[in-house]
Amino acid sequence: MKDKFFKYLHELQDTITSKLEMIDGSSVFKEDIWKRNEGGGGRTRIIENGAIFEKGGVNISGVHGKLPTSMESYFNVKNVDFFACGLSLVLHPKNPMAPTVHANWRYFEMYNKKGDVIDQWFGGGQDLTPYYLFEEDAVHFHQVCKAACDKHNPDFYLTYKNRCDTYFYNSHRKEARGIGGLFFDYCKSSQEISMSQWYDFVKEVGDSFLEAYVPILEKRVQLPFTKEQQNWQEIRRGRYVEFNLVHDKGTLFGLKTNGRIESILMSLPPKVQWVYDHQPGPKSEEEKLIRVLKTPKKWV
Amino acid sequence: MKDKFFKYLHELQDTITSKLEMIDGSSVFKEDIWKRNEGGGGRTRIIENGAIFEKGGVNISGVHGKLPTSMESYFNVKNVDFFACGLSLVLHPKNPMAPTVHANWRYFEMYNKKGDVIDQWFGGGQDLTPYYLFEEDAVHFHQVCKAACDKHNPDFYLTYKNRCDTYFYNSHRKEARGIGGLFFDYCKSSQEISMSQWYDFVKEVGDSFLEAYVPILEKRVQLPFTKEQQNWQEIRRGRYVEFNLVHDKGTLFGLKTNGRIESILMSLPPKVQWVYDHQPGPKSEEEKLIRVLKTPKKWV
Repeated sequence: MKDKFFKYLHELQDTITSKLEMIDGSSVFKEDIWKRNEGGGGRTRIIENGAIFEKGGVNISGVHGKLPTSMESYFNVKNVDFFACGLSLVLHPKNPMAPTVHANWRYFEMYNKKGDVIDQWFGGGQDLTPYYLFEEDAVHFHQVCKAACDKHNPDFYLTYKNRCDTYFYNSHRKEARGIGGLFFDYCKSSQEISMSQWYDFVKEVGDSFLEAYVPILEKRVQLPFTKEQQNWQEIRRGRYVEFNLVHDKGTLFGLKTNGRIESILMSLPPKVQWVYDHQPGPKSEEEKLIRVLKTPKKWV
Repeated sequence: MKDKFFKYLHELQDTITSKLEMIDGSSVFKEDIWKRNEGGGGRTRIIENGAIFEKGGVNISGVHGKLPTSMESYFNVKNVDFFACGLSLVLHPKNPMAPTVHANWRYFEMYNKKGDVIDQWFGGGQDLTPYYLFEEDAVHFHQVCKAACDKHNPDFYLTYKNRCDTYFYNSHRKEARGIGGLFFDYCKSSQEISMSQWYDFVKEVGDSFLEAYVPILEKRVQLPFTKEQQNWQEIRRGRYVEFNLVHDKGTLFGLKTNGRIESILMSLPPKVQWVYDHQPGPKSEEEKLIRVLKTPKKWV
């Protein structure tokens, strides 16, 4: 399973980065191959200062070895080996009318000292963070998410949509990071569903990413924008930073376990502002966004 | 003690904000008085878009009531009341030649149900975060810190200088946040030193703040700077954000216990950049700073 899925992630990274380079037309991804001392490594691909993308990363990694001590207590195990691979992407378009997008698909295995697999699961998801709310974009993104889920289980979409709303939540601001999407974790084999069926589901979501995001991006980057709208984008990007550094388990885990810092923090936006007690004007487009982030909506 | 110290903090806030307004000459502090539902409140003073200060806050607060559950396990107590007051300041000058400064002085008391004080302590410190290293500035700042300490105990300076280097450390970057200063906590009465003597010491440090920082600021804001140097400042400010959101106990505690978010996050810089894998040129002024942050120096 791990070889099959990691191979899929390599192909998916290629598919996504070539499509995004075509869309950008000006900048290309810079590739960094890195190795992890304790086992494994990754292929980081970063785009910066493009015509469309101000900053973005589409990274894969596959790491293995002895499970770090800090993770032992988290998973409540002792002296086990592990393998983990994943693709993580974050795209920050320059145009504030175009949303930031995040996606991640990952697979985890643990082994006893004999090398038997003692646990294995998939996780992942994709979610959208607009700076200006176009309801039809939110509906499109969620429709693609739902279509991918519905092919596998009629309950998946609602379950994972709700988990996404719960997870990507800036509790200290009492608002969601964005308008959500899907978030799933610990997808393990059971009487109802085998690992191979989970693989098919995660691949379905991975394959749906470009269809979910690209039409929105291509439409919104056509729109003109003002310096004030760009300021608003940079202020909202501050909330993105707050979520990633204060609440996101993946980021914190990476930072505290000696992960490759630059690959982890590629998610942080290129230009960010913090303005004291910034409040959007009443009935403004900016306030409309905040209202939706305060109370996550059903989009489909 | 609590009334005496809180009164001192009010006066110190006035002294500091009037001096800083005089220096800025263009912008003034905006004051927000806020109340905490569970007891107490604060007086937040923020300056933005000044001639000298791009952003800064000099805040006091005094809060009391039942100790929040999240703090009970931290202090290993149950069902106690508390009082806490403090002054926190962070100043982000516009000119990248001038350093950011942070200071905090605080006092904490806990009571049993009869209202007896069962524990009490002071904490605080002040530290400097330059974007370009002027060794004479670091020496001046530490000299003032040392002089304040030496009036009270010959060991204080070295002890609290080292704690500052240890505390304000971005472990995920393996570098200090800045060039340090003082950091002390849990300053409790003992056979050697009474609470009243701790008060005198903390007041000495508080009173030394303007002398430690203002001469540096006034000298450096005279210097010209380029767009590239400003970019470097904004990239380094990203490390400041990383420390405050990932490692700073005070910030995280505030965010997770329903503190006044805007007063807590006033510490975040106004404009920030994250550039993938940014490396200063060899033997550049930027690299010189990094070298010192990797290995904290003895300045006096």
